[in-house]
Amino acid sequence: MDDLLQRILDGDRRAVARLITLVENGDPAAKEPIRKLHEYTGKAHIVGVTGAPGSGKSTLVNSLTKELRRRGKSVGIIAIDPTSPFTGGAVLGDRVRMQDLATDPEVFIRSMGTRGSLGGISVATNDAVNILDAFGKDLIIVETVGAGQVEVDIVKLAHTSVVVTMPGGGDEIQALKAGIMEIGDIFVVNKADREDAGRTYTEIMMMLEMSQRDEDRVPPVIRTVATTGRGVEELADAVLDHYRYLKERGLLEKKAKERILAELMEIIDRRVERNVSRALQEDPEMVELVKKLVDTREIDPHSGAQIVIQHLLKKAEV
Amino acid sequence: MDDLLQRILDGDRRAVARLITLVENGDPAAKEPIRKLHEYTGKAHIVGVTGAPGSGKSTLVNSLTKELRRRGKSVGIIAIDPTSPFTGGAVLGDRVRMQDLATDPEVFIRSMGTRGSLGGISVATNDAVNILDAFGKDLIIVETVGAGQVEVDIVKLAHTSVVVTMPGGGDEIQALKAGIMEIGDIFVVNKADREDAGRTYTEIMMMLEMSQRDEDRVPPVIRTVATTGRGVEELADAVLDHYRYLKERGLLEKKAKERILAELMEIIDRRVERNVSRALQEDPEMVELVKKLVDTREIDPHSGAQIVIQHLLKKAEV
Repeated sequence: MDDLLQRILDGDRRAVARLITLVENGDPAAKEPIRKLHEYTGKAHIVGVTGAPGSGKSTLVNSLTKELRRRGKSVGIIAIDPTSPFTGGAVLGDRVRMQDLATDPEVFIRSMGTRGSLGGISVATNDAVNILDAFGKDLIIVETVGAGQVEVDIVKLAHTSVVVTMPGGGDEIQALKAGIMEIGDIFVVNKADREDAGRTYTEIMMMLEMSQRDEDRVPPVIRTVATTGRGVEELADAVLDHYRYLKERGLLEKKAKERILAELMEIIDRRVERNVSRALQEDPEMVELVKKLVDTREIDPHSGAQIVIQHLLKKAEV
Repeated sequence: MDDLLQRILDGDRRAVARLITLVENGDPAAKEPIRKLHEYTGKAHIVGVTGAPGSGKSTLVNSLTKELRRRGKSVGIIAIDPTSPFTGGAVLGDRVRMQDLATDPEVFIRSMGTRGSLGGISVATNDAVNILDAFGKDLIIVETVGAGQVEVDIVKLAHTSVVVTMPGGGDEIQALKAGIMEIGDIFVVNKADREDAGRTYTEIMMMLEMSQRDEDRVPPVIRTVATTGRGVEELADAVLDHYRYLKERGLLEKKAKERILAELMEIIDRRVERNVSRALQEDPEMVELVKKLVDTREIDPHSGAQIVIQHLLKKAEV
């Protein structure tokens, strides 16, 4: 398996694809290469792109990637597919839409499914980002749908977060306001050739003015038409400018630390969950506890949590 | 604080509001009453309602509640506000929209913010549902936006999951398919007076036919116009029918067990996270570990997770 890592460092795309698959399947064979990868990471500019379904986010990522390639940057794309937490089946839409990039050897595209919280989508996504980082991609774009907690977590951990909206009613904007307004470093009004694009642009500008942001930097709002490429140069400028801004302010190190600690926490959570699940099913004392929680309700979940933790500590099984 | 629980069991609305606030703020004063509440829970029919922003979900919940009241049922509503994970500020929209229900003593409405994963929205939401359950509400409606992981988790834990869509384009449907198709027990096409409602209805029917569902039951698809009340009686029938179906098949106990074990796991996760965070900041050995993770990158997050867990076990600090 050391061979797999070496092949990735040597630029072998198939080795990259293979390791991401191992990670996605929770294959133990991924363990060693992922561990050894860590020291080769930290060089890529990680860009999170989020937006509602229908905002044209994937097409925009497509256009942005082409523009970045024109500027000589290599690009990795991780598209998070919000597939059912139950089937794990894959939506192929993104991959199909990005087909015209697929022949460029400097672009690496991968869709990843979300498989319920126990599957640990965040852990797998972070591993995949790290693989592309070690692989040497200059920019890694993580594309997520919507404003759920997982999406927010992923976007929060990017260096640069791009929030994609489109013209149309206050509903979009309300969702924005509600979910991800404050994590956006760059805002995009896509489909800006529609007649109500101006209103959406103004609404976002107003919201940004009203919101109390810590930074001195006001996020740019960029109008694009992803299908024609309009505004995409400006977006590429904004993305690269933001990275420079982080660098100049010494904020890159802070982001890197946050990212690694969040990864650490996620891995710990998933491991604890696995051990607790096993204990609740197999350990006679814990099976008894479940009865008291569920059947007689004489123990409540908060007290139950304490008992489980004490039990695992005693057995040193966490 | 026992007094607070007693007052809730006696039907005091202000005590209910007070305890939910304590829960939301993570106030330790909530602990005792929440623990003692557990034995009074398990009687309510928990209904999850989810849908994209703009689907008219809140108005529909409003109409459904009125219909359920007409049938003599008392109703509790928990509206999850997808507020920023950073400010915790509240979107008041839902509360305002539901104002006409607010004077009915048999209806209890509460908006709750989502405050990032560390805040434990799921724990607080479950606690609030349990409070309304002990309070004696016949039905508890948990209203969430979108198809993020938190929403899926919440809806999954309801007895009956209602997925609200509206006419308009494949984007809506794609998101549906991707996220929550398989957790819906009842599907609604709201705004069914729009001309393209028929197509959306047909698309959902086809998707349901194609999807491989375990159950013998095919989820109904109901056309509603929430603003006029059209279809809302039918929706109320479907909601109550589904509960009867669960009861007759002996599935209620299974759901109750899943719910309680999910609560337990969530509480354990949050507790482990608190302890790990503290150790990483305060414990000299762990501070050293963070340096090796972040600065020199000589330890990777997966190995780091193992070290942290071993450390906490040794110190019995989990």
